[in-house]
Order: sequence, then C-alpha cells, then structure tokens
Amino acid sequence: MRLFERLEALYEIGGGRGANRPAYSDAEEEAHRLVAGWMNEAGLDVERDAAGNLYGRFPGSRPELPEVWTGSHLDSVPEGGRFDGPLGVLAGLEAIERIGQQERTLRVAAFRDEEGWRWGRGCFGSRALCGQLEPGELDAVDDDGVSLRDAVGQELSGSGLLQRLLAAYVEVHIEQGPVLAGAEAPLGVVTAIVGLARLAVTFTGSAGHAGTTPMGTRDDALCKAAEYVLRVRDAAAAREGAVATVGRLAVEPGAANVIPDRVSLIVDARAPEEAMLAALLAEIEATADGADVERLRRTEPVRMAEAVRSALREALAEHGIDAPELHSGAGHDAGVLGAAGVPSGMLFVRSLAGGVSHSPDEESSPEDVALAVEVLAATLRRLAS
Amino acid sequence: MRLFERLEALYEIGGGRGANRPAYSDAEEEAHRLVAGWMNEAGLDVERDAAGNLYGRFPGSRPELPEVWTGSHLDSVPEGGRFDGPLGVLAGLEAIERIGQQERTLRVAAFRDEEGWRWGRGCFGSRALCGQLEPGELDAVDDDGVSLRDAVGQELSGSGLLQRLLAAYVEVHIEQGPVLAGAEAPLGVVTAIVGLARLAVTFTGSAGHAGTTPMGTRDDALCKAAEYVLRVRDAAAAREGAVATVGRLAVEPGAANVIPDRVSLIVDARAPEEAMLAALLAEIEATADGADVERLRRTEPVRMAEAVRSALREALAEHGIDAPELHSGAGHDAGVLGAAGVPSGMLFVRSLAGGVSHSPDEESSPEDVALAVEVLAATLRRLAS
Repeated sequence: MRLFERLEALYEIGGGRGANRPAYSDAEEEAHRLVAGWMNEAGLDVERDAAGNLYGRFPGSRPELPEVWTGSHLDSVPEGGRFDGPLGVLAGLEAIERIGQQERTLRVAAFRDEEGWRWGRGCFGSRALCGQLEPGELDAVDDDGVSLRDAVGQELSGSGLLQRLLAAYVEVHIEQGPVLAGAEAPLGVVTAIVGLARLAVTFTGSAGHAGTTPMGTRDDALCKAAEYVLRVRDAAAAREGAVATVGRLAVEPGAANVIPDRVSLIVDARAPEEAMLAALLAEIEATADGADVERLRRTEPVRMAEAVRSALREALAEHGIDAPELHSGAGHDAGVLGAAGVPSGMLFVRSLAGGVSHSPDEESSPEDVALAVEVLAATLRRLAS
Repeated sequence: MRLFERLEALYEIGGGRGANRPAYSDAEEEAHRLVAGWMNEAGLDVERDAAGNLYGRFPGSRPELPEVWTGSHLDSVPEGGRFDGPLGVLAGLEAIERIGQQERTLRVAAFRDEEGWRWGRGCFGSRALCGQLEPGELDAVDDDGVSLRDAVGQELSGSGLLQRLLAAYVEVHIEQGPVLAGAEAPLGVVTAIVGLARLAVTFTGSAGHAGTTPMGTRDDALCKAAEYVLRVRDAAAAREGAVATVGRLAVEPGAANVIPDRVSLIVDARAPEEAMLAALLAEIEATADGADVERLRRTEPVRMAEAVRSALREALAEHGIDAPELHSGAGHDAGVLGAAGVPSGMLFVRSLAGGVSHSPDEESSPEDVALAVEVLAATLRRLAS
C-alpha cells in the first residue's frame, strides 16, 4: 500500500528510535520536500506560505468559490510514531488524487510545528495562518537557544496568512486514545476538540526532622498535595468526557528524613464543552485550599462544524461504516481553523495498542487507513461539489 | 559563658553558612584538635582509637572499676547548627572538670561520623567502638569517590575497639524536636531511642496521553501513590509516639501531558517500641497493594537504662527541675552503646525555634545549657561514685 510506504519513508527521516522530525528542523524540511515531490507527482500545484506551511492545490472548475482543505502536519515529537500527522497529509493527498477536479479548489496542507514541544505551544503553523499568534511568541527560544523567529526565517504579522475564508477543512488523524478500539470501530467522527487549562499549584508546609516531629504538629506539604491530587482526579471523574491529570510533581527538599515543605505540581484539565471546563476548573481551583495557584494557559473547546460532520456521516453511511461520535482530548490544527471560523471537522482512525501515542508503538491497520482514505475522498467530493 | 564561646569556635571552622564539618574531613579533624586542646587544659588524658574517636580521660581513685562515659560527636551535616553534637562533648568536658576525680574513671568521648550523610549510615565511630560495623561497610564511597576506609586511614576489625564493658554512658543533646519547648521545660529525660525502618516503594501504572485517555480507563501511578502517602500518614498517626514520613517522591515520565506510569518514594517509619514498630511496618507494607516494596534498612528501638534514667531523675530533682520524659525520634551514639549492652541514657536540652534542626537556626538558650551541665555533673557523680 503506497500510503504505508510513504509513512515509512517519512518515519525513517530523522534517524534513531521512532519518528524524529522536530518543527523547523532539517528533518521536517526533508519531510516537506518529500511530500512536495509526491504532490507534484499527483499533478497538484505546490505552494508554501510565509510560515513554511506546505500546500498541494488542485484548482476547481469554479475557482472563485471558497476552497475545501484537508491535511495535518509532518513534524513529530522526539521518538514519535508513524501516524500522528503524516497520516492526515498522506490520506488527504490520496483522496484528492482519487476524486480529481471538483467545482471547488481542493488543497492538502502540511502545517508547521503542530506538536509545539520545541517552543512550548502547539499548532504554530495553523495559528500563523489564522492570525492567532501571541504577542512576542516569535521571541521564544528552544533548549539550544534558537528563537522561533530565526527558525521560521521570516517575520510574521499578527494578521495571519489566510487570504479568504474557506468552505471547509477536514482532517484525518489517528485517535491517540482507546475509544474506537474499545467500540471495535475503524473510524469515528469528532464532535469537538477539548478546551485545555494548565495550572501550576504549589503547596507550602514546614520542613522538620522526620524522626523528631510528632505527627500531630506536622505541616507536611506532600500530604496536602496528595489529598489534592485525589480531589483533582475526582473532580474530573465526576464529569463525563472531562479529564484531569497531575503529570509533574516535585517534592522539596526531597530528603528521606525531612518532612517536605514545598510541593509544586502541574494540573492539566480538559473538557469538551465550555461550561464543563469552567465548572471543572472552578472546582480544581477552589479545592486547592491554601496552595498558590498560577494559571498557565487556557484554550476553550472548539465544536466541529455540523456541515462537515454531516458530510462525514453521509460518506460513512455510503460505505456502510457504523462510526461512533467522540471528542478529541488532544489539540489539532482543525481546532485552530475551527476557532478561526472555518467550518471544520475531523475523522479519527482507530489506534491499536490501546491508543498508545507519541511512541514508536503507535499503530493503525492498513485496512482502517484504506477505509479512512475512501471516506475522506467521499467527504471532500460532497463538500467541494 | 565558656561553653558558648567554644560552640562558636567549632561553628566557625568549616566556613560558609552554618556548621560544615563533614565526617573525617579536615574540618572535623580541626574540631577534634581544638577539643583535644581543651581536654588537655582541663587536665584530662587525651586518647584516640583506631576509628579516630577522641577521648578525654580522668582516672578514678579505683581505676579497676568499669568506667563512666559521657560525650557526643563533632561532625555536622552541611549547613548544620551549633548545638547538634558539640553541645554533648563540651557539656561533658565542663561536667567532668567541675566534679573532678571520682571512684570510677570518667571519660568524655567525641565519636566520629554520627551524622552519616557522607557514606550513608550514621554513628560510624560508636559502631566501630562497639563492633557493629556491617560487612563491606568500609568499601562505601562518598560523592567524590572517597572510600570510608581511606577516610578512616585504618583497617577496622569487626570485633570492635571497646576493651571492657562500661558502667554507664550519658549523652547530652539538643532535642531536635518541639516537645520540651511545648511543655515549657528546659530539660527532658530520654526513655528510648526509636527504631527506624526505610522502605523504597515503587508504584507502576500505564503511561497515557493526558487528554485522550478517559478517566475510567486510567492506571495512574501518581493517584495510587497519593492514596498510599495518606495511608502511611494515618498508620503512624494512629500510634502514639510513632511517626512516618514520605520525604522523597519522584514521578515518571514527569511531563504535564502524560499520565504517570511510575512513582518511586521512600517511607521513613519510626517507633519507640519494638512491637509498635513491627505493627506500623506491617500496616505500611500491607497497604502498599500492588507496589514493589524494598526494605532498605531497619534498626530496633533501644530503651535507655533504668539505672541511668534514675540517676538523671535524682540529679534533676536535686536541682528542682521538673523534666518530662520523652523518646528520641532521631538516632544517637547513646543508642549504639545501649544496644551493645552499655547502660545508657540521654538528657535532652530544649530546642528553641520550634525544634528546628540541621540548620543554622538551631538554638538553645545559655540558661538551659547551664542547667544541663549542672545536671550532667550531678548525674556523673552519682554514677561514678
């Protein structure tokens, strides 16, 4: 299967274990060159914008109409998997090649720096496209002191690169979770992309000798943090669809015989609806009693457009596929375009191996991927005609 | 007050913030030389044993009788306080000088490496004296790769350095806890030195994406560890006199958007009675369900000798001091000598500043220290005549 051969060619670029294509690295550049070549082979016009996003364009028979886009990204986390990003770009390319010219111009996009680990924020390319860069964002430097501005090699204006509103954007992506595998469904239609908040929470206590300080007189920062970790878990568990995680936690001074006087942790909380996210955060902040709480970031949930979802549902029905609806717990370029007013949707492909993601073990089957290409092609045809 | 001037002279030796006299360092050597000079001034015979422990000896009128010893240690933790160790050595020296010749030979000892942070185990000098070194213990290396054997500069046999059983050992020490300050008492009589166990406990879960893994399907190692930290606290709180602390805890992989798959922590559990320590440990191990538990070390509690305690109580009564009885939550050389069969006791001096220890803020008042010297002198007189 050509798509799997291409996934493998992209996977091998960075060398080492797993996928290694950091944003704006030589490895990501090489992936963009390789995909640009395949776009050429497919007869698409290859374009790049000021942020370095790559486009393969198939002009429509009525080029004055708003365009229909598909795509995803080609950068990866360190030691990433084969599917996260490249699957959406390659499936888009296959689908456009398959359906040929439509009324509307079709375009497959490869957005830059979706993963965001190098400069700390994701979906850089799609946000640059949609005029959603933050003030000073280009000044951020990576661990080697390289600024995002120097890596992009361009000054980007805050007004964005998108010339006119699109008719639709549809992104194919591996699920990165266990829901479709649990439902024994090859594909799923995304209802919304979760909103996300990060909080830095610091508990303070009193250091003391672990042997000589009676239990009754202690002020143990780790015991306070332990109770809080469980309250955070319970607050999310009580809300269907919400999640909350404490993934980082540091204990000071960190000696076996000293009662901790400082525990700092990060809460990652997500929910698919605005009101749910607000209620979850209110509970998480209210129960951090006595702790210092710093709000690090917050994005609101983005609902996928009904027009795109119904096109996806019709295409699935056409192929006799019973696809569940589910929300995305991770951020995606489709969320950026959706938030910017582009009618957007996503088609998730079942992840094998329990939804393992950001790992070489990430896996989808050739059969599921072939189905996704067919459904995407049928969806694009619906949206573009 | 001469004793405080001497404390200050010892405090200044290592330079930097606080006391800095690591075991077997030049700074500890200098402290030993200084104290040896004061022993000489007081007319005591100065001796050293193969482990480098320092003794000032006042021969008794009946030198054939078992000796009576007092003392403590001169090494310190990094950035330590003025009182921890030197107080017991200097108070012993003052007390012997004050009471002069008794029937029994009197001796003030400065034991090596009581703190134990450099090679990982405390009370090295008193254990070498009592024949309680572990096999291979001299092979331990510090952070700079220096072995304990090279630091001692001697091969030590496992049979110990003590020539014959002593009549008694009495050690004055700052409390390192808040009990005497809470009782508004200048001095206290130690009933027992706690037994101590250290456990390395590792919880394993499944890593997963913090956004895409539903709460119901998670196996979060940090949530399991948080529940355990609280069970450890509750197990100790339910037993009067017991304590348990989780002072070290590390979360892996430690990323804000990844569910932790591994949390490793150290439990420090202590109790003043054997049966209580056994029950506490049984509960702490039984409730670590699913975790990997490694027993790192365990020492049993040591009861202080009734003969020494009653001598202390009589001396206190003679000075009209109402002194509470309390156990020691920290290990001391008196625990080593007691466990080796020497009738041993300890007199604690009130710690100001909430019992702060291992810190430059450690503090006792000149008045309390003067009382401790008087009571120690009266106690030694009772035990040595």
